[in-house]
Amino acid sequence: MSTRTDEERAREQLIDLAAEFYDQFAGGQIPEMTLPTRTKSNIEYDKESGVWVYGDRTSSRSANSVRGARKLLKAVYTIEFLAQQLDEGRSSTLRELYYLSESWDNSEAHFSDQDESNQLIEDLEIVSDVTREDFHMRPEESGATLMGPLLLREQTRRGEREIHCQEDVGEGGYQIPNNPDTIEFLDNDIDFVLCVETGGMRDRLIENGFDEQYNCMVVHLKGQPARATRRIIKRLHDELDLPVTVFCDGDPWSYRIYGSVAYGSIKSAHLSEYLATPEAEYIGIQPQDIVDYDLPTDPLSDSDINALESELTDPRYQTDYWEEQIELQLEIGKKAEQQALASRGLDFVTETYLPERLDAMDVI
Amino acid sequence: MSTRTDEERAREQLIDLAAEFYDQFAGGQIPEMTLPTRTKSNIEYDKESGVWVYGDRTSSRSANSVRGARKLLKAVYTIEFLAQQLDEGRSSTLRELYYLSESWDNSEAHFSDQDESNQLIEDLEIVSDVTREDFHMRPEESGATLMGPLLLREQTRRGEREIHCQEDVGEGGYQIPNNPDTIEFLDNDIDFVLCVETGGMRDRLIENGFDEQYNCMVVHLKGQPARATRRIIKRLHDELDLPVTVFCDGDPWSYRIYGSVAYGSIKSAHLSEYLATPEAEYIGIQPQDIVDYDLPTDPLSDSDINALESELTDPRYQTDYWEEQIELQLEIGKKAEQQALASRGLDFVTETYLPERLDAMDVI
Repeated sequence: MSTRTDEERAREQLIDLAAEFYDQFAGGQIPEMTLPTRTKSNIEYDKESGVWVYGDRTSSRSANSVRGARKLLKAVYTIEFLAQQLDEGRSSTLRELYYLSESWDNSEAHFSDQDESNQLIEDLEIVSDVTREDFHMRPEESGATLMGPLLLREQTRRGEREIHCQEDVGEGGYQIPNNPDTIEFLDNDIDFVLCVETGGMRDRLIENGFDEQYNCMVVHLKGQPARATRRIIKRLHDELDLPVTVFCDGDPWSYRIYGSVAYGSIKSAHLSEYLATPEAEYIGIQPQDIVDYDLPTDPLSDSDINALESELTDPRYQTDYWEEQIELQLEIGKKAEQQALASRGLDFVTETYLPERLDAMDVI
Repeated sequence: MSTRTDEERAREQLIDLAAEFYDQFAGGQIPEMTLPTRTKSNIEYDKESGVWVYGDRTSSRSANSVRGARKLLKAVYTIEFLAQQLDEGRSSTLRELYYLSESWDNSEAHFSDQDESNQLIEDLEIVSDVTREDFHMRPEESGATLMGPLLLREQTRRGEREIHCQEDVGEGGYQIPNNPDTIEFLDNDIDFVLCVETGGMRDRLIENGFDEQYNCMVVHLKGQPARATRRIIKRLHDELDLPVTVFCDGDPWSYRIYGSVAYGSIKSAHLSEYLATPEAEYIGIQPQDIVDYDLPTDPLSDSDINALESELTDPRYQTDYWEEQIELQLEIGKKAEQQALASRGLDFVTETYLPERLDAMDVI
């Protein structure tokens, strides 16, 4: 739960950071900020937490160059803005921050593009150990939905709302808010969580009543999942002790969607413990399914092949399971979408495919 | 409201179409299907309805060639599938239809790609005068949301749900279902509808309580709006007699978003009376706003300039207002996003910009 205390802590951590620059100055040192190097070669598996985290290599932003000094100036202005925002209990988007910098009195502090302001917020997350959500920075879109036997309470700016994610929502489901830590789980009959990549498949499962028949929480991923979506999946797993399964298209881009749910991403490796669910299991579409169920396919493109080969060297996919599946896929040269299961009829996915896979995975 | 009667009518219209092919055969004629030509030059303004519709030019799909015969064969298989789907009270996605064709016994009837099946569904909409929604064909994604003082009743497969779009939803709002004709408006305090292009701006308006302060229904367009979103905007206008305003970025692509809300699109000109709200007014960002409010801008790219020039020849934008604004934009060579208003502070949009524009437009 996001509380007043979280906001105070976030504010304090930010002020501490600014105070550190001040002390460096006062002590005759050139101010600097040290960060882990954020590249694929500096991400490593942490056995204890089961997720991928940054390694030991660091890079620093130092005021010993005009470029570095300007970066620290921008950081200080941003810290002041965030501290004030938290003080007022308000929030803003990453894009608004970029534009807002135009109103700052020192034009050297204006961001030159949104990549720069986005990256600064990520830097501040890493050095302050506070998530963007606790800074009250919203993404542009969240947009994914839940449908399943869960009663929750959401703390909104307009008061508390108690919502049952089957009985109190329309067919569109419950819209996950930007910061899902405003949600408290009150009661549930969920047996497992099923994360679904595409809207078409999500709608198929709801129409066929899969969530009701299997006491399943259907989480729509909407392609590469937003942080809010990954966070709520993790909370469903950790707090309600639920198995989490991921159902995507059978192509390298979809394996990355699974990867970001399970292991986190390179961009957000500092947040793996907050966002990643390493126990999440991949249901399919697996390359093996393409063979077993004789699904309609498309040939792998050159960029598909490159992506599969790059996954073979990605530490997140160096397991027997993924090596076997990816090598099989390169061998057959084919990919299939989840909706390709419709070639066996509209009920095949809910009556045959998912029950067989969930049984094989010991989920049901 | 979508009712059993709508489904029966849709089914009858489809069967009639198949019967027509049969009669053509029986009468010794070569079966054919005639459709309006769907190009920009065959779209014209209909004074009575105030929207753009197809002109008089037609093209026909005739069985006098193998290619044409195959198209009609696919149409007949699709009609059979749709009639059965309606009979069983089920639905499916456009993508599922494409894959499902793989299960049809005659391999000549299999679709070769999804463009082909999508286009056939549009053809069937035109010749049968039944909307895709009444065929129970769902899009892949709908996903837009409502937030505002409206109590509605949604007819779901799981029974009726009464939902107030401020009091019974989280901060994410009410998720518009794929077929919004399953919704009935029960009660409201709405003074006007504000359609918003980006998620960041939608969240800003909700955080600032704009919907509460102005009794405004905030509809998130999510970029180019889905049919479901356009349909609910039209119903809010027609049934509740509400002014509709559209708030987008200030660039040619966003003017097209406004255009599709107000006048319909070339692709769906046959549905203009069902989807378009010709009374919808454009709030901004206008090129004039870039000048008046001194907004942060980006230079127009070559493709922006081409798009603006193409809009000047598009019948939908041949009004004094649009010609003036587009010519001004070409002159200043700049574009601005709606979130650029944040350069004047986070409350500028709700305390100054929107009230001024709504007042100038006589909406408030």
